[in-house]
Amino acid sequence: MSFYELCDDVAGAIQHAVSGLIGKPDAGVMLRIGADGTPTEKIDEAAENAALSVLEKDGRSMRFVSEELGERKIGGKPEFTFVLDPIDGTFNAVNNIPFFCVPIAICGSDLSDIRYGYVRNLVSGDIYTAEKGKGAYLKTPYKTPYLNTGTKGTKIHVSSVSELPGLSVISYSHRPHAVPINNHNVRRVRVFGCAALELCYIASGIFDAFIDMRSMLRVTDIAASKLIVEEAGGKVTDGQGNSLSTPLDVTKRVNMIASNGLVHDKLLELV
Amino acid sequence: MSFYELCDDVAGAIQHAVSGLIGKPDAGVMLRIGADGTPTEKIDEAAENAALSVLEKDGRSMRFVSEELGERKIGGKPEFTFVLDPIDGTFNAVNNIPFFCVPIAICGSDLSDIRYGYVRNLVSGDIYTAEKGKGAYLKTPYKTPYLNTGTKGTKIHVSSVSELPGLSVISYSHRPHAVPINNHNVRRVRVFGCAALELCYIASGIFDAFIDMRSMLRVTDIAASKLIVEEAGGKVTDGQGNSLSTPLDVTKRVNMIASNGLVHDKLLELV
Repeated sequence: MSFYELCDDVAGAIQHAVSGLIGKPDAGVMLRIGADGTPTEKIDEAAENAALSVLEKDGRSMRFVSEELGERKIGGKPEFTFVLDPIDGTFNAVNNIPFFCVPIAICGSDLSDIRYGYVRNLVSGDIYTAEKGKGAYLKTPYKTPYLNTGTKGTKIHVSSVSELPGLSVISYSHRPHAVPINNHNVRRVRVFGCAALELCYIASGIFDAFIDMRSMLRVTDIAASKLIVEEAGGKVTDGQGNSLSTPLDVTKRVNMIASNGLVHDKLLELV
Repeated sequence: MSFYELCDDVAGAIQHAVSGLIGKPDAGVMLRIGADGTPTEKIDEAAENAALSVLEKDGRSMRFVSEELGERKIGGKPEFTFVLDPIDGTFNAVNNIPFFCVPIAICGSDLSDIRYGYVRNLVSGDIYTAEKGKGAYLKTPYKTPYLNTGTKGTKIHVSSVSELPGLSVISYSHRPHAVPINNHNVRRVRVFGCAALELCYIASGIFDAFIDMRSMLRVTDIAASKLIVEEAGGKVTDGQGNSLSTPLDVTKRVNMIASNGLVHDKLLELV
Protein backbone atom coordinates (compact mmCIF):
# COMPACT_ATOMS: atom_id res chain seq x y z
CA MET A 1 0.00 0.00 0.00
CA SER A 2 1.48 3.32 -1.08
CA PHE A 3 1.71 6.38 1.15
CA TYR A 4 -1.04 7.88 -1.00
CA GLU A 5 -3.36 4.97 -0.30
CA LEU A 6 -2.57 4.97 3.42
CA CYS A 7 -3.23 8.72 3.71
CA ASP A 8 -6.33 8.47 1.58
CA ASP A 9 -7.75 5.66 3.73
CA VAL A 10 -7.14 7.69 6.88
CA ALA A 11 -8.65 10.88 5.40
CA GLY A 12 -11.62 8.90 4.08
CA ALA A 13 -12.23 7.36 7.50
CA ILE A 14 -12.07 10.82 9.08
CA GLN A 15 -14.44 12.29 6.51
CA HIS A 16 -16.92 9.51 7.25
CA ALA A 17 -16.53 9.86 11.02
CA VAL A 18 -17.17 13.62 11.09
CA SER A 19 -19.81 13.89 8.38
CA GLY A 20 -22.66 13.96 10.88
CA LEU A 21 -20.91 16.55 13.06
CA ILE A 22 -20.35 19.36 10.55
CA GLY A 23 -22.29 22.50 11.44
CA LYS A 24 -23.44 21.11 14.78
CA PRO A 25 -22.48 23.30 17.71
CA ASP A 26 -22.38 20.34 20.11
CA ALA A 27 -19.58 18.84 17.99
CA GLY A 28 -17.52 21.69 19.40
CA VAL A 29 -18.07 20.75 23.01
CA MET A 30 -14.72 20.59 24.80
CA LEU A 31 -13.91 17.16 26.17
CA ARG A 32 -10.49 17.89 27.70
CA ILE A 33 -7.22 19.68 27.00
CA GLY A 34 -5.35 17.79 24.29
CA ALA A 35 -1.65 16.96 24.11
CA ASP A 36 -1.01 20.13 22.12
CA GLY A 37 -2.31 22.28 24.98
CA THR A 38 -5.55 23.32 23.27
CA PRO A 39 -9.06 21.96 23.85
CA THR A 40 -10.01 18.63 22.31
CA GLU A 41 -13.53 18.92 20.96
CA LYS A 42 -15.93 16.08 20.21
CA ILE A 43 -15.28 16.35 16.46
CA ASP A 44 -11.49 16.22 16.98
CA GLU A 45 -11.76 13.07 19.03
CA ALA A 46 -14.06 11.37 16.52
CA ALA A 47 -11.61 12.19 13.74
CA GLU A 48 -8.53 11.03 15.62
CA ASN A 49 -10.15 7.75 16.67
CA ALA A 50 -11.11 7.05 13.05
CA ALA A 51 -7.52 7.63 11.97
CA LEU A 52 -6.10 5.42 14.72
CA SER A 53 -8.33 2.55 13.82
CA VAL A 54 -7.13 2.63 10.19
CA LEU A 55 -3.46 2.88 11.20
CA GLU A 56 -3.66 0.04 13.72
CA LYS A 57 -5.03 -2.24 11.00
CA ASP A 58 -2.39 -1.17 8.46
CA GLY A 59 0.25 -3.49 9.81
CA ARG A 60 3.24 -1.18 9.38
CA SER A 61 5.14 0.03 12.41
CA MET A 62 5.12 3.75 12.90
CA ARG A 63 5.32 6.61 15.32
CA PHE A 64 1.93 8.36 15.28
CA VAL A 65 1.96 12.07 16.14
CA SER A 66 -1.43 13.75 16.41
CA GLU A 67 -2.80 16.93 17.94
CA GLU A 68 -5.04 15.43 20.57
CA LEU A 69 -3.19 12.36 21.86
CA GLY A 70 0.30 13.69 21.25
CA GLU A 71 2.33 10.63 20.35
CA ARG A 72 1.82 6.88 20.20
CA LYS A 73 3.89 4.00 18.90
CA ILE A 74 2.05 1.62 16.60
CA GLY A 75 3.68 -1.80 16.05
CA GLY A 76 7.44 -2.41 16.51
CA LYS A 77 10.41 -0.31 15.42
CA PRO A 78 8.93 2.72 13.60
CA GLU A 79 9.47 2.86 9.83
CA PHE A 80 8.34 6.49 9.75
CA THR A 81 6.43 9.15 11.67
CA PHE A 82 2.80 9.65 10.69
CA VAL A 83 1.93 13.29 11.50
CA LEU A 84 -1.76 14.14 11.59
CA ASP A 85 -4.04 17.00 12.44
CA PRO A 86 -7.37 15.11 12.62
CA ILE A 87 -9.29 18.28 11.61
CA ASP A 88 -7.57 21.51 10.67
CA GLY A 89 -10.18 24.26 10.93
CA THR A 90 -12.33 22.84 13.75
CA PHE A 91 -14.02 26.19 14.39
CA ASN A 92 -15.07 26.35 10.73
CA ALA A 93 -16.27 22.74 10.68
CA VAL A 94 -18.38 23.09 13.79
CA ASN A 95 -19.94 26.31 12.51
CA ASN A 96 -20.63 25.03 8.99
CA ILE A 97 -18.08 27.41 7.46
CA PRO A 98 -16.95 25.38 4.44
CA PHE A 99 -13.21 25.53 5.01
CA PHE A 100 -11.53 22.65 6.85
CA CYS A 101 -9.26 19.78 5.94
CA VAL A 102 -7.17 16.79 7.00
CA PRO A 103 -3.39 17.26 6.65
CA ILE A 104 -1.09 14.23 6.89
CA ALA A 105 2.70 14.07 6.62
CA ILE A 106 4.97 11.03 6.46
CA CYS A 107 8.21 12.13 8.07
CA GLY A 108 11.56 11.13 9.50
CA SER A 109 12.52 12.83 12.73
CA ASP A 110 11.70 16.52 12.23
CA LEU A 111 10.26 19.15 9.86
CA SER A 112 13.42 19.06 7.74
CA ASP A 113 12.69 15.46 6.73
CA ILE A 114 9.19 15.23 5.26
CA ARG A 115 8.86 12.42 2.74
CA TYR A 116 5.24 12.69 1.74
CA GLY A 117 2.51 15.27 2.23
CA TYR A 118 -1.26 14.86 1.80
CA VAL A 119 -4.02 17.40 2.41
CA ARG A 120 -7.68 16.62 1.77
CA ASN A 121 -10.18 19.48 1.64
CA LEU A 122 -13.14 17.91 3.45
CA VAL A 123 -15.63 20.22 1.75
CA SER A 124 -14.69 20.02 -1.91
CA GLY A 125 -12.81 16.73 -1.81
CA ASP A 126 -9.74 18.34 -3.44
CA ILE A 127 -6.58 16.40 -2.59
CA TYR A 128 -3.12 17.99 -2.60
CA THR A 129 -0.11 15.65 -2.50
CA ALA A 130 3.66 15.85 -2.75
CA GLU A 131 6.43 13.30 -2.62
CA LYS A 132 9.90 14.57 -1.80
CA GLY A 133 11.69 15.43 -5.05
CA LYS A 134 8.74 14.55 -7.26
CA GLY A 135 6.61 17.69 -7.41
CA ALA A 136 3.22 18.65 -6.00
CA TYR A 137 -0.19 17.66 -7.34
CA LEU A 138 -3.84 18.59 -7.03
CA LYS A 139 -6.53 16.02 -7.64
CA THR A 140 -10.02 17.38 -7.70
CA PRO A 141 -12.91 14.93 -7.64
CA TYR A 142 -15.52 16.85 -9.61
CA LYS A 143 -16.54 20.32 -10.73
CA THR A 144 -13.25 20.89 -12.53
CA PRO A 145 -12.61 17.55 -14.24
CA TYR A 146 -10.33 19.14 -16.83
CA LEU A 147 -7.71 19.41 -14.11
CA ASN A 148 -7.42 15.66 -13.66
CA THR A 149 -4.82 14.53 -16.11
CA GLY A 150 -3.42 11.59 -14.16
CA THR A 151 -3.94 9.48 -11.08
CA LYS A 152 -2.17 12.04 -8.93
CA GLY A 153 -4.07 14.87 -10.59
CA THR A 154 -2.39 17.86 -12.14
CA LYS A 155 1.02 19.19 -11.27
CA ILE A 156 0.74 22.49 -9.41
CA HIS A 157 3.09 25.45 -9.24
CA VAL A 158 3.40 28.54 -7.11
CA SER A 159 2.52 31.91 -8.62
CA SER A 160 4.91 34.26 -10.39
CA VAL A 161 3.91 37.55 -8.73
CA SER A 162 7.07 39.32 -7.63
CA GLU A 163 5.98 42.77 -6.40
CA LEU A 164 4.25 43.54 -3.10
CA PRO A 165 1.37 45.64 -4.52
CA GLY A 166 0.24 42.66 -6.59
CA LEU A 167 0.28 40.11 -3.76
CA SER A 168 -2.60 38.02 -2.51
CA VAL A 169 -1.61 37.11 1.02
CA ILE A 170 -2.89 34.95 3.85
CA SER A 171 -1.74 36.76 6.97
CA TYR A 172 -2.09 36.01 10.67
CA SER A 173 0.67 38.38 11.56
CA HIS A 174 -1.24 41.37 12.83
CA ARG A 175 0.42 42.64 15.96
CA PRO A 176 -0.50 45.66 18.05
CA HIS A 177 2.28 47.96 16.89
CA ALA A 178 3.51 46.44 13.67
CA VAL A 179 1.44 45.65 10.61
CA PRO A 180 3.74 44.16 8.03
CA ILE A 181 0.95 43.25 5.65
CA ASN A 182 -2.27 45.15 5.25
CA ASN A 183 -4.80 46.25 2.73
CA HIS A 184 -2.69 49.23 1.78
CA ASN A 185 0.56 47.57 0.76
CA VAL A 186 -0.68 44.39 -0.92
CA ARG A 187 -3.57 43.56 -3.22
CA ARG A 188 -5.57 41.21 -1.06
CA VAL A 189 -5.41 39.90 2.53
CA ARG A 190 -7.41 36.88 3.59
CA VAL A 191 -7.63 34.75 6.73
CA PHE A 192 -9.66 31.55 6.41
CA GLY A 193 -8.70 29.85 9.66
CA CYS A 194 -7.24 26.63 8.24
CA ALA A 195 -3.48 26.89 7.75
CA ALA A 196 -2.91 23.54 6.04
CA LEU A 197 -5.40 24.36 3.29
CA GLU A 198 -4.32 27.98 3.01
CA LEU A 199 -0.75 26.78 2.42
CA CYS A 200 -2.01 24.56 -0.41
CA TYR A 201 -3.37 27.73 -2.03
CA ILE A 202 0.20 29.04 -2.03
CA ALA A 203 1.31 25.81 -3.71
CA SER A 204 -1.37 26.04 -6.38
CA GLY A 205 -0.68 29.72 -7.06
CA ILE A 206 -4.08 31.11 -5.96
CA PHE A 207 -2.33 33.05 -3.19
CA ASP A 208 1.26 34.28 -3.28
CA ALA A 209 2.26 34.17 0.38
CA PHE A 210 1.28 32.91 3.82
CA ILE A 211 2.48 34.61 6.99
CA ASP A 212 1.81 33.51 10.56
CA MET A 213 3.85 35.31 13.20
CA ARG A 214 1.65 34.47 16.19
CA SER A 215 3.88 31.61 17.41
CA MET A 216 0.81 29.40 17.32
CA LEU A 217 1.39 26.94 14.48
CA ARG A 218 2.00 23.30 15.37
CA VAL A 219 3.98 20.77 13.35
CA THR A 220 0.71 18.89 12.77
CA ASP A 221 -0.76 21.99 11.05
CA ILE A 222 2.12 22.60 8.68
CA ALA A 223 4.22 19.48 8.00
CA ALA A 224 2.25 18.18 5.00
CA SER A 225 1.75 21.58 3.42
CA LYS A 226 5.39 22.58 3.92
CA LEU A 227 6.45 19.80 1.54
CA ILE A 228 3.58 20.57 -0.85
CA VAL A 229 4.63 24.24 -1.07
CA GLU A 230 8.29 23.35 -1.52
CA GLU A 231 7.59 20.74 -4.18
CA ALA A 232 5.40 23.28 -6.01
CA GLY A 233 8.45 25.56 -6.26
CA GLY A 234 7.81 27.71 -3.19
CA LYS A 235 9.85 28.57 -0.15
CA VAL A 236 9.10 27.96 3.54
CA THR A 237 11.02 29.45 6.47
CA ASP A 238 10.48 30.72 9.97
CA GLY A 239 10.01 34.46 10.56
CA GLN A 240 13.78 35.02 10.47
CA GLY A 241 14.33 33.27 7.15
CA ASN A 242 15.73 30.06 8.65
CA SER A 243 14.62 26.68 7.39
CA LEU A 244 12.26 24.82 9.71
CA SER A 245 13.62 21.77 11.48
CA THR A 246 11.25 21.66 14.42
CA PRO A 247 10.98 18.28 16.21
CA LEU A 248 7.70 16.44 15.61
CA ASP A 249 6.25 17.38 18.97
CA VAL A 250 2.74 18.85 19.22
CA THR A 251 3.67 21.11 22.12
CA LYS A 252 6.12 23.09 19.93
CA ARG A 253 4.89 26.30 18.31
CA VAL A 254 6.43 28.04 15.32
CA ASN A 255 6.22 31.14 13.16
CA MET A 256 6.16 30.62 9.43
CA ILE A 257 6.44 32.39 6.13
CA ALA A 258 5.63 30.49 2.97
CA SER A 259 5.73 32.11 -0.44
CA ASN A 260 6.23 31.63 -4.13
CA GLY A 261 9.93 32.30 -3.45
CA LEU A 262 10.04 35.48 -5.52
CA VAL A 263 8.68 37.68 -2.74
CA HIS A 264 10.18 35.84 0.20
CA ASP A 265 13.02 38.25 0.97
CA LYS A 266 10.71 41.26 0.69
CA LEU A 267 8.33 39.69 3.19
CA LEU A 268 11.15 38.84 5.59
CA GLU A 269 12.21 42.48 5.56
CA LEU A 270 8.68 43.51 6.52
CA VAL A 271 8.01 41.18 9.44
CA MET B 1 -45.23 35.84 -6.01
CA SER B 2 -43.62 36.78 -2.69
CA PHE B 3 -40.33 38.60 -2.36
CA TYR B 4 -38.87 35.31 -1.14
CA GLU B 5 -39.95 33.52 -4.30
CA LEU B 6 -38.71 36.32 -6.55
CA CYS B 7 -35.29 36.40 -4.85
CA ASP B 8 -35.09 32.62 -4.82
CA ASP B 9 -35.84 32.42 -8.53
CA VAL B 10 -33.14 34.97 -9.29
CA ALA B 11 -30.57 33.26 -7.05
CA GLY B 12 -31.46 29.88 -8.53
CA ALA B 13 -31.00 31.20 -12.06
CA ILE B 14 -27.62 32.64 -11.07
CA GLN B 15 -26.53 29.40 -9.42
CA HIS B 16 -27.41 27.52 -12.60
CA ALA B 17 -25.70 30.07 -14.85
CA VAL B 18 -22.39 30.02 -12.98
CA SER B 19 -22.21 26.34 -12.04
CA GLY B 20 -19.89 25.54 -14.94
CA LEU B 21 -17.63 28.50 -14.20
CA ILE B 22 -16.66 27.79 -10.57
CA GLY B 23 -12.95 27.09 -10.17
CA LYS B 24 -12.19 27.98 -13.78
CA PRO B 25 -9.62 30.74 -14.12
CA ASP B 26 -11.00 31.85 -17.48
CA ALA B 27 -14.27 32.69 -15.72
CA GLY B 28 -12.26 35.48 -14.14
CA VAL B 29 -11.26 37.07 -17.43
CA MET B 30 -12.02 40.78 -17.34
CA LEU B 31 -14.54 41.84 -19.95
CA ARG B 32 -14.74 45.56 -19.17
CA ILE B 33 -14.97 47.99 -16.26
CA GLY B 34 -18.42 47.70 -14.69
CA ALA B 35 -20.70 50.48 -13.50
CA ASP B 36 -19.27 50.20 -9.99
CA GLY B 37 -15.79 51.06 -11.28
CA THR B 38 -14.31 47.57 -10.82
CA PRO B 39 -13.69 44.92 -13.51
CA THR B 40 -16.63 42.90 -14.79
CA GLU B 41 -15.48 39.31 -15.17
CA LYS B 42 -17.08 36.62 -17.30
CA ILE B 43 -18.72 34.99 -14.29
CA ASP B 44 -20.18 38.34 -13.13
CA GLU B 45 -21.74 38.95 -16.52
CA ALA B 46 -23.21 35.43 -16.75
CA ALA B 47 -24.74 35.88 -13.29
CA GLU B 48 -26.17 39.33 -13.98
CA ASN B 49 -27.68 38.27 -17.29
CA ALA B 50 -29.36 35.30 -15.61
CA ALA B 51 -30.86 37.63 -13.01
CA LEU B 52 -32.07 40.13 -15.60
CA SER B 53 -33.81 37.48 -17.59
CA VAL B 54 -35.81 36.34 -14.53
CA LEU B 55 -36.71 39.91 -13.57
CA GLU B 56 -37.84 40.91 -17.04
CA LYS B 57 -40.27 37.97 -17.07
CA ASP B 58 -41.57 38.72 -13.57
CA GLY B 59 -43.99 41.39 -14.75
CA ARG B 60 -43.60 43.78 -11.83
CA SER B 61 -42.12 47.23 -12.41
CA MET B 62 -38.91 47.91 -10.59
CA ARG B 63 -35.67 49.80 -10.51
CA PHE B 64 -32.85 47.25 -10.90
CA VAL B 65 -29.52 48.18 -9.32
CA SER B 66 -26.63 45.81 -9.95
CA GLU B 67 -22.86 45.94 -9.71
CA GLU B 68 -22.00 45.53 -13.36
CA LEU B 69 -24.70 47.40 -15.28
CA GLY B 70 -25.36 50.02 -12.60
CA GLU B 71 -29.04 50.80 -12.91
CA ARG B 72 -31.92 49.87 -15.22
CA LYS B 73 -35.66 50.46 -15.13
CA ILE B 74 -37.76 47.36 -15.69
CA GLY B 75 -41.43 47.96 -16.61
CA GLY B 76 -43.30 51.17 -15.72
CA LYS B 77 -43.34 53.17 -12.48
CA PRO B 78 -41.06 51.24 -10.08
CA GLU B 79 -42.75 49.49 -7.15
CA PHE B 80 -39.38 48.95 -5.43
CA THR B 81 -35.62 48.84 -6.03
CA PHE B 82 -34.12 45.41 -6.58
CA VAL B 83 -30.49 45.60 -5.39
CA LEU B 84 -28.21 42.77 -6.52
CA ASP B 85 -24.60 41.76 -6.39
CA PRO B 86 -24.66 38.97 -9.02
CA ILE B 87 -21.74 37.20 -7.28
CA ASP B 88 -20.25 38.39 -4.01
CA GLY B 89 -16.84 36.74 -3.69
CA THR B 90 -15.88 36.52 -7.37
CA PHE B 91 -12.22 35.90 -6.57
CA ASN B 92 -13.19 32.94 -4.39
CA ALA B 93 -15.61 31.53 -6.96
CA VAL B 94 -13.14 31.68 -9.81
CA ASN B 95 -10.44 30.03 -7.70
CA ASN B 96 -12.66 27.29 -6.29
CA ILE B 97 -12.46 28.73 -2.77
CA PRO B 98 -15.84 27.65 -1.37
CA PHE B 99 -17.04 31.01 -0.12
CA PHE B 100 -19.29 33.10 -2.36
CA CYS B 101 -22.94 34.08 -2.46
CA VAL B 102 -25.76 36.05 -4.07
CA PRO B 103 -27.10 38.93 -1.95
CA ILE B 104 -30.41 40.58 -2.92
CA ALA B 105 -32.25 43.45 -1.23
CA ILE B 106 -35.71 44.85 -1.94
CA CYS B 107 -35.51 48.52 -1.05
CA GLY B 108 -37.10 51.92 -1.19
CA SER B 109 -34.79 54.79 -2.04
CA ASP B 110 -31.68 54.23 0.10
CA LEU B 111 -29.98 51.98 2.69
CA SER B 112 -32.26 53.28 5.44
CA ASP B 113 -35.27 51.70 3.72
CA ILE B 114 -34.61 48.01 3.14
CA ARG B 115 -37.81 45.97 3.10
CA TYR B 116 -36.48 42.49 2.41
CA GLY B 117 -33.05 40.87 2.43
CA TYR B 118 -32.00 37.54 0.91
CA VAL B 119 -28.53 35.96 0.81
CA ARG B 120 -27.90 32.56 -0.76
CA ASN B 121 -24.61 30.80 -0.04
CA LEU B 122 -23.86 29.30 -3.46
CA VAL B 123 -21.67 26.55 -1.99
CA SER B 124 -23.77 25.14 0.83
CA GLY B 125 -27.16 26.35 -0.34
CA ASP B 126 -27.85 28.06 2.99
CA ILE B 127 -30.38 30.89 2.60
CA TYR B 128 -30.56 33.84 4.99
CA THR B 129 -33.65 36.05 4.83
CA ALA B 130 -35.18 38.95 6.71
CA GLU B 131 -38.34 40.98 6.30
CA LYS B 132 -38.44 44.39 7.94
CA GLY B 133 -39.87 44.03 11.46
CA LYS B 134 -40.28 40.25 11.23
CA GLY B 135 -36.91 38.81 12.25
CA ALA B 136 -34.13 37.02 10.40
CA TYR B 137 -34.06 33.37 9.33
CA LEU B 138 -31.64 30.72 8.10
CA LYS B 139 -32.84 27.91 5.90
CA THR B 140 -30.31 25.23 5.27
CA PRO B 141 -31.04 22.64 2.60
CA TYR B 142 -29.19 19.66 3.99
CA LYS B 143 -26.45 18.62 6.44
CA THR B 144 -28.17 20.27 9.40
CA PRO B 145 -31.82 19.38 8.87
CA TYR B 146 -32.61 19.88 12.55
CA LEU B 147 -32.36 23.60 11.90
CA ASN B 148 -35.30 23.64 9.53
CA THR B 149 -38.34 24.19 11.64
CA GLY B 150 -40.46 26.10 9.17
CA THR B 151 -40.65 27.23 5.57
CA LYS B 152 -38.42 30.21 6.30
CA GLY B 153 -36.04 28.03 8.31
CA THR B 154 -35.00 28.83 11.84
CA LYS B 155 -35.01 32.23 13.44
CA ILE B 156 -31.45 33.45 13.97
CA HIS B 157 -29.97 35.78 16.58
CA VAL B 158 -26.72 37.62 17.03
CA SER B 159 -24.28 36.42 19.68
CA SER B 160 -24.17 37.55 23.29
CA VAL B 161 -20.40 38.10 23.64
CA SER B 162 -19.84 41.48 25.26
CA GLU B 163 -16.10 41.71 25.97
CA LEU B 164 -13.36 42.33 23.40
CA PRO B 165 -11.06 39.41 24.39
CA GLY B 166 -13.86 36.97 23.61
CA LEU B 167 -14.73 38.37 20.18
CA SER B 168 -14.65 36.53 16.88
CA VAL B 169 -14.30 39.30 14.32
CA ILE B 170 -14.30 39.67 10.56
CA SER B 171 -12.00 42.62 9.94
CA TYR B 172 -10.90 44.41 6.78
CA SER B 173 -9.78 47.42 8.73
CA HIS B 174 -6.03 46.94 8.79
CA ARG B 175 -4.37 50.24 8.06
CA PRO B 176 -0.68 51.04 8.02
CA HIS B 177 -0.50 52.89 11.32
CA ALA B 178 -3.63 51.86 13.15
CA VAL B 179 -4.70 48.32 13.96
CA PRO B 180 -7.94 48.49 15.87
CA ILE B 181 -8.51 44.75 15.79
CA ASN B 182 -5.80 42.14 15.82
CA ASN B 183 -4.91 38.75 17.16
CA HIS B 184 -3.80 40.26 20.45
CA ASN B 185 -6.94 42.07 21.55
CA VAL B 186 -9.68 39.73 20.33
CA ARG B 187 -10.11 35.98 20.21
CA ARG B 188 -10.24 35.36 16.48
CA VAL B 189 -9.84 37.43 13.29
CA ARG B 190 -10.99 36.09 9.95
CA VAL B 191 -11.27 37.52 6.44
CA PHE B 192 -13.12 35.34 3.94
CA GLY B 193 -13.49 37.83 1.10
CA CYS B 194 -17.29 37.81 0.81
CA ALA B 195 -18.87 40.59 2.88
CA ALA B 196 -22.52 39.66 2.34
CA LEU B 197 -21.99 36.15 3.67
CA GLU B 198 -19.64 37.25 6.46
CA LEU B 199 -22.36 39.64 7.66
CA CYS B 200 -24.82 36.73 7.79
CA TYR B 201 -22.38 35.05 10.20
CA ILE B 202 -22.84 38.07 12.47
CA ALA B 203 -26.61 37.63 12.20
CA SER B 204 -26.42 33.93 13.06
CA GLY B 205 -24.04 34.50 15.97
CA ILE B 206 -21.04 32.56 14.59
CA PHE B 207 -19.05 35.80 14.55
CA ASP B 208 -19.60 38.77 16.84
CA ALA B 209 -18.56 41.71 14.67
CA PHE B 210 -17.69 42.78 11.14
CA ILE B 211 -15.49 45.79 10.43
CA ASP B 212 -14.58 47.20 7.04
CA MET B 213 -12.88 50.59 7.14
CA ARG B 214 -11.36 50.48 3.64
CA SER B 215 -14.10 52.67 2.08
CA MET B 216 -14.62 49.91 -0.46
CA LEU B 217 -18.04 48.42 0.31
CA ARG B 218 -20.84 49.05 -2.19
CA VAL B 219 -24.56 49.16 -1.44
CA THR B 220 -24.93 45.98 -3.51
CA ASP B 221 -22.56 44.15 -1.13
CA ILE B 222 -24.28 45.13 2.09
CA ALA B 223 -27.96 46.09 1.61
CA ALA B 224 -29.43 42.61 2.10
CA SER B 225 -27.17 41.66 4.99
CA LYS B 226 -27.68 44.99 6.75
CA LEU B 227 -31.36 44.15 7.22
CA ILE B 228 -30.56 40.54 8.13
CA VAL B 229 -28.14 41.65 10.86
CA GLU B 230 -30.58 44.25 12.20
CA GLU B 231 -33.51 41.82 12.21
CA ALA B 232 -31.32 39.30 14.06
CA GLY B 233 -30.87 41.84 16.84
CA GLY B 234 -27.58 43.36 15.70
CA LYS B 235 -26.45 46.89 14.96
CA VAL B 236 -25.07 48.36 11.73
CA THR B 237 -23.45 51.79 11.39
CA ASP B 238 -20.72 53.54 9.47
CA GLY B 239 -17.28 53.93 11.06
CA GLN B 240 -18.44 56.97 13.04
CA GLY B 241 -21.48 55.28 14.53
CA ASN B 242 -24.01 56.91 12.22
CA SER B 243 -26.78 54.90 10.64
CA LEU B 244 -26.32 54.15 6.95
CA SER B 245 -28.60 55.94 4.52
CA THR B 246 -26.44 55.74 1.39
CA PRO B 247 -28.29 56.19 -1.92
CA LEU B 248 -28.64 52.99 -3.97
CA ASP B 249 -25.86 53.89 -6.37
CA VAL B 250 -23.10 51.36 -7.14
CA THR B 251 -20.45 54.06 -7.43
CA LYS B 252 -20.83 54.99 -3.72
CA ARG B 253 -18.41 53.40 -1.24
CA VAL B 254 -18.92 53.09 2.50
CA ASN B 255 -17.25 52.00 5.71
CA MET B 256 -19.22 49.74 7.96
CA ILE B 257 -19.31 48.23 11.39
CA ALA B 258 -21.83 45.51 12.15
CA SER B 259 -22.01 43.79 15.48
CA ASN B 260 -24.17 41.98 17.98
CA GLY B 261 -24.90 45.42 19.45
CA LEU B 262 -23.29 44.65 22.81
CA VAL B 263 -19.76 45.44 21.60
CA HIS B 264 -20.63 48.17 19.12
CA ASP B 265 -19.57 51.18 21.19
CA LYS B 266 -16.29 49.50 22.18
CA LEU B 267 -15.49 48.86 18.52
CA LEU B 268 -16.35 52.43 17.54
CA GLU B 269 -13.88 53.66 20.14
CA LEU B 270 -11.16 51.51 18.60
CA VAL B 271 -11.54 52.41 14.94
